[in-house]
Parts: sequence; C-alpha cells; structure tokens
Amino acid sequence: MARPRRSDDTRQLLVEEGAAGFLTNGYHGTGIKQVLDAVGVPKGSFYNYFDSKETFGQAVIDYHSQCIQRNMAAAFGPALDPVAGLRAFFARQMDEFVETDYTGGCLIANLGAELEGSEVLRESLSAAFRTWRDGMAVALREAQEQGTIRADIDAAELADLLIESWEGAVIRMKIDRTLEPLRKCLARLLDDYFRP
Amino acid sequence: MARPRRSDDTRQLLVEEGAAGFLTNGYHGTGIKQVLDAVGVPKGSFYNYFDSKETFGQAVIDYHSQCIQRNMAAAFGPALDPVAGLRAFFARQMDEFVETDYTGGCLIANLGAELEGSEVLRESLSAAFRTWRDGMAVALREAQEQGTIRADIDAAELADLLIESWEGAVIRMKIDRTLEPLRKCLARLLDDYFRP
Repeated sequence: MARPRRSDDTRQLLVEEGAAGFLTNGYHGTGIKQVLDAVGVPKGSFYNYFDSKETFGQAVIDYHSQCIQRNMAAAFGPALDPVAGLRAFFARQMDEFVETDYTGGCLIANLGAELEGSEVLRESLSAAFRTWRDGMAVALREAQEQGTIRADIDAAELADLLIESWEGAVIRMKIDRTLEPLRKCLARLLDDYFRP
Repeated sequence: MARPRRSDDTRQLLVEEGAAGFLTNGYHGTGIKQVLDAVGVPKGSFYNYFDSKETFGQAVIDYHSQCIQRNMAAAFGPALDPVAGLRAFFARQMDEFVETDYTGGCLIANLGAELEGSEVLRESLSAAFRTWRDGMAVALREAQEQGTIRADIDAAELADLLIESWEGAVIRMKIDRTLEPLRKCLARLLDDYFRP
C-alpha cells in the first residue's frame, strides 16, 4: 500500500503512523509511545482517540482496507478490460514493493500471521480480506461475462485463490527480495489457469 | 508443525520452546526470559547456548525446517503414489491446525511476514522455504513421470505455486478459523490445475 498521506486530523495521523509502524515492525513491535512521538502527541492524549491498543489496531486495519478499496477503484475504474484492471492493481503494488525495497509487504497478511487471541482484530482482518476478495470477484465476474476469464469456476473462488497465492508470494518476495514470486503467481493464474 | 518433542538437551529444549513461542506470539512477542523460565534455565545461561536472540531465532527456523523435512519424509516415503504423499503431508498439517484450534499457522510464513532488518534470519527463512519447495518438487516430478500431474509446467514452479497458495490460505484459515481455505486451495490446484 502507498505510504499514508498526511492529514490535519490527529486521529487520522495516529492511524496512518500506526499503519506504517505495524507494516514495518508488526503489531507487537510497535509501541503506542513511538506512534505518539512520531505524530507529536502527548502520551496522555492517546485515550482521547482510542480505548486501547486493540481499538487502535482495529482503526488501522479499517484504514488499510479502505486503501485497498481505493486502489481497486483506481485500477478497475478506468480499465475497459477488467483483467487489465486486475493487472494494474497488482502492478501498482509491485511498484510500491520496489520503492520500499521489498520490505513491509501486506499489512492484512502480516497481522493475520502475527496476531492471536484478539477477537476484535480477527474480525477486522476477516472483514478486510472479504472486502478485498469481493472487489476482485466483481472484476473477475465481469471478465467472465466478457469471455476473457474461464466461467466454469465461481469468480469468488478464483478471487480467493488469486489473493491467497498473491499473499504467499508476497511473503516469499519479502524473504528473497525479488518480485519474481509475484510475477510467477500472476503468470500462472491470470495467464494460464484462469484463461477461458 | 507438530508440538516439539522434548529432549534432555537444554539447547534443544530452548529451541523447541522458542518454536512454540514464536508460533503463538511471534518473534518480537516472545521474550528470551519467558523461554528460559519455561525450560527452567537461569537467565545468565542463555549466552552459553546462543550469541544473541537473532542466533536463537536462526536455530528455531532451522529446527522448524527439519520438522518440515521429517514430515515430508513421513508422508512421501510410504506412499506409492506421490500425489497421495502430498495429500498426506497437507492432511497432517490440517489435523494439527484443528488440534490447536486454528492458531499458530506456519512458523516460516509468520516470521517471513513479521521480520524485517535481519539478514541472518532472512537467509534462514529463505533456505527453509527452498528446502520445502525442493522436497515438494521431488514428489511433483515423480508424479509427472507417473502421469498423474501435468508435465508441461516445471515441477519446481508447481511446488512454488502450491506452497505460496497454501501459505496464503493458512493465513485466511487463522483469521476465519476454518479449514475451508486450505481444502479449496488443494482442490483447485491438486484436483484441477495440476492434473494432466
């Protein structure tokens, strides 16, 4: 995802800083104090905005989910060909990964891998995954109607496989510091398995 | 992976405790002190076994990689049909996920998602992924020779896609607390895309 844009709203600044922190250091590795310090907010003020670190985490996940939705709208909207839209969405992610030298990866997958024991955060992550999956399925269904993607498998199921393979490939990208797993994932699925 | 078996060797006990801790709480969320306390080793003794938390992390990753190799040998060895061996490997993982109520997931993927900035740990994770991929590719290549898996795509590339899709599905399993993403991943790949 893109580096968060700054806004004047302190709560939003805290969420954006949290997203950057969680992406780099994980949920447990990101202290509330360092988020507050980075934004320049006194420690006591945190509870004016959030009940707990968990509530803060929930706001960060929701914010990241909105970023994914914006990126999908930006990629799918202008494209007449929905498969070109899907490619544009992933190409943008790959550009961002190169910019950040293959660090970070996907916040939703990272937190999904890291977090245990919080029902609140688990539900936020589940909702974020579903929203992403549903958005991809819309583009895939449209492509099925246009005859550019195979129509014998449900679009939601194709979207699940595409997202999950992508997430696994993102983790290997982080470990091996190369886009190759991502390019191969798209080539195998979009250019082969998903073809009509 | 299976709960680590206890041994009499203190270093090994620390590694096994570390694997359990990292799986549940991540690398940053697992303190050396809690590992030492669980094994009943005084704090000062840690450096008799490891130079740093990073060296300890490396030993935990290597241990986990050996567990994967043992599980592959156990699943692939007795099976006359290598595809049945692959299914047995994944079935065992699914059984363990059910036993631990869908928590934990895969240590290699979790640490890959979480860790940044350590070249030592990055290289250990890369080696663990490659060893796993290579083991899966051996079974897939054998199946290609037997005509039960399509032979027009390199076995290593099929293994990459299978492992990465599985890893993404494991993260969704953790979030949604169901084996469904894992079953769907195997059905889409082993029962469909990979068929001759």
